[in-house]
Amino acid sequence: MDLSRRDFTRIGAVSLAASLSPTLVAQSAPGRKIGYCIIGLGRISDLFMAGVQSSPNSRVVALVSGHPEKAARYAEKYGIPASSIYNYQNMDAIRSNPAIDAVYIGLPNSMHAEYTIRSARAGKHVLCEKPMATTVAEGEQMIATCRDANVKLMIAYRCHYETTHQRVVKLLRSGALGKINLIQSAFGFSCDGNDWRVKKALAGHGPLFDVGIYCLNACRYLTGEEPSQISAYAFSDPSDPRFTEVEESVTWTMKFPSGALASCATTFGGQMEGYFRVYTNRGWLEVSPAFGYDGLHLRAEYLPEGGPFTTLDEPNPEKSPYHFTLEANHFSTCVLENRTPKSPGEEGLRDMVYLTQILRSAGIPA
Amino acid sequence: MDLSRRDFTRIGAVSLAASLSPTLVAQSAPGRKIGYCIIGLGRISDLFMAGVQSSPNSRVVALVSGHPEKAARYAEKYGIPASSIYNYQNMDAIRSNPAIDAVYIGLPNSMHAEYTIRSARAGKHVLCEKPMATTVAEGEQMIATCRDANVKLMIAYRCHYETTHQRVVKLLRSGALGKINLIQSAFGFSCDGNDWRVKKALAGHGPLFDVGIYCLNACRYLTGEEPSQISAYAFSDPSDPRFTEVEESVTWTMKFPSGALASCATTFGGQMEGYFRVYTNRGWLEVSPAFGYDGLHLRAEYLPEGGPFTTLDEPNPEKSPYHFTLEANHFSTCVLENRTPKSPGEEGLRDMVYLTQILRSAGIPA
Repeated sequence: MDLSRRDFTRIGAVSLAASLSPTLVAQSAPGRKIGYCIIGLGRISDLFMAGVQSSPNSRVVALVSGHPEKAARYAEKYGIPASSIYNYQNMDAIRSNPAIDAVYIGLPNSMHAEYTIRSARAGKHVLCEKPMATTVAEGEQMIATCRDANVKLMIAYRCHYETTHQRVVKLLRSGALGKINLIQSAFGFSCDGNDWRVKKALAGHGPLFDVGIYCLNACRYLTGEEPSQISAYAFSDPSDPRFTEVEESVTWTMKFPSGALASCATTFGGQMEGYFRVYTNRGWLEVSPAFGYDGLHLRAEYLPEGGPFTTLDEPNPEKSPYHFTLEANHFSTCVLENRTPKSPGEEGLRDMVYLTQILRSAGIPA
Repeated sequence: MDLSRRDFTRIGAVSLAASLSPTLVAQSAPGRKIGYCIIGLGRISDLFMAGVQSSPNSRVVALVSGHPEKAARYAEKYGIPASSIYNYQNMDAIRSNPAIDAVYIGLPNSMHAEYTIRSARAGKHVLCEKPMATTVAEGEQMIATCRDANVKLMIAYRCHYETTHQRVVKLLRSGALGKINLIQSAFGFSCDGNDWRVKKALAGHGPLFDVGIYCLNACRYLTGEEPSQISAYAFSDPSDPRFTEVEESVTWTMKFPSGALASCATTFGGQMEGYFRVYTNRGWLEVSPAFGYDGLHLRAEYLPEGGPFTTLDEPNPEKSPYHFTLEANHFSTCVLENRTPKSPGEEGLRDMVYLTQILRSAGIPA
């Protein structure tokens, strides 16, 4: 949680290389594929499993679900034997299933800690969806348990492994755009009132934890810095029955040690396509859309030192679920080669700290 | 300064109609044109004079300048007699020039108060550029002096009179887009180190007063509300000699009584095309670019109550200096018909109050 910027950059550089180089896997473990047990069979797990199918070093080998028919359907799709289908009661038995190297946790936020901890105690590496947890304390416990169990913990920040985001980070680090002055970012959508995302017991909090976290995390990897000051406002329409348990909208501003300033917004109250725009002393760069599963589009205009004036207009042609393939590749490589993931538990915990600060600044107990 | 929302809306509605209706001028004062004395002959005055040329009810009749050759050039262009060319020492003599109905003040910010007050005392109506002044106290004095002198005071918020902005405000007020959840807006540019804009004695403050004010003012007319909470950060690169007197960048967030949240950013440190984007519970709407002299572009997607799903993509074909023509039309109509301008001194003063709050929140003495 208290990594210095140098540590952060070093981790980033190592795993950037790892995730970009398809040869690494082949060199270190020819033919070996990491076997994943998928915990929770919602939309995100569906995408992850589809992504794994395209991965050279990953495969789906087991399922944990409370819905036997759904589990049977996926088992058939991915050739999983009945003996590798678990439910939430008996899932600790994954310990004795040697086909399972790692778990992927695609459950509602409030279940991340419990299932990370149970999986770690069963001796399995853990790839857990974001947000890592619903509180900082849970996050710390997850990290400690995984460390004690000697298993890896990665938080599924898929944008860390996505090609447009990686290109943007490299471009900014190259210095071509100079110094970052300001960032604006937003991500939100109109959430259904029956969604677990608006139930406090399942989600912990509202749009900030679900999609606002993309903006927060992006500001951190775009700047390569940790925010030194945070200020926020939140609002919930009192007449909207969706927002009795969690907040509807949050805006927050961050100041980074370099002086870079960032303004972000998130909502469950209406469509808000995810994007970020970076303003520098040499131009600007935006990815819009930035956080969807495909269709990412990079645009930029800048004058590098020594020129020439540069215009970028780069739609990313990759199709969903390529994010998940790249994410699975990375975690499997880390397991195969005993490396630290680019987005370890500590990275998730940092966001938990900032998410909590944002909520408190907005007057929401957290 | 303490107008209620109802007052604000009423003033807005009246003058919206006035500025949109070309028949009003003809009905009330056929053939009569308001004569403007232009004080300061910089870029903005050049645009204003060009705009006036296209106005049916306005004309340029006098000049105040410290540069005799420049004044002579404009005098020739606009057919102004030598007797109507003044300098900063003798400009109080405009009192005895019956051709002058009003002045247009296109001077650096710190001179707005003095020349508004001198013009009012000379019995002339005043159209003063934004920001109204460099302090709230100056703004209050300007309003009081104009009131006592029985002359009108309008602050040159050209976007109030511009067709795309007016269309957006009408669209939002119609309810078609529902309730505003969030607004993001930005405006900035890379300022030359020799520009008066980075000299505190002339500008008062940095990009917030010069271009950030467009975002602030837009958030107010988009919501039709006054911010109830403001929070801000500022930054100046200590190694950049341009920013020894004024700040380089400011971000600020506002919360409005309805719950609408707004995040804005401004800078003198790099290119930041002016825009705003409004997120509602029924869709979104943006104008980008929003604050330039032409090329404005409205885009929106929303589902009005009862449908159908609506997509707007409306570039504004008008060419600069049409903003200034519309602005001059409005003020001249107000003078001719003894109406209160849509953006009176009180409107400018409100922004002065918020600008001051933003700076103070960011730790800048103001």
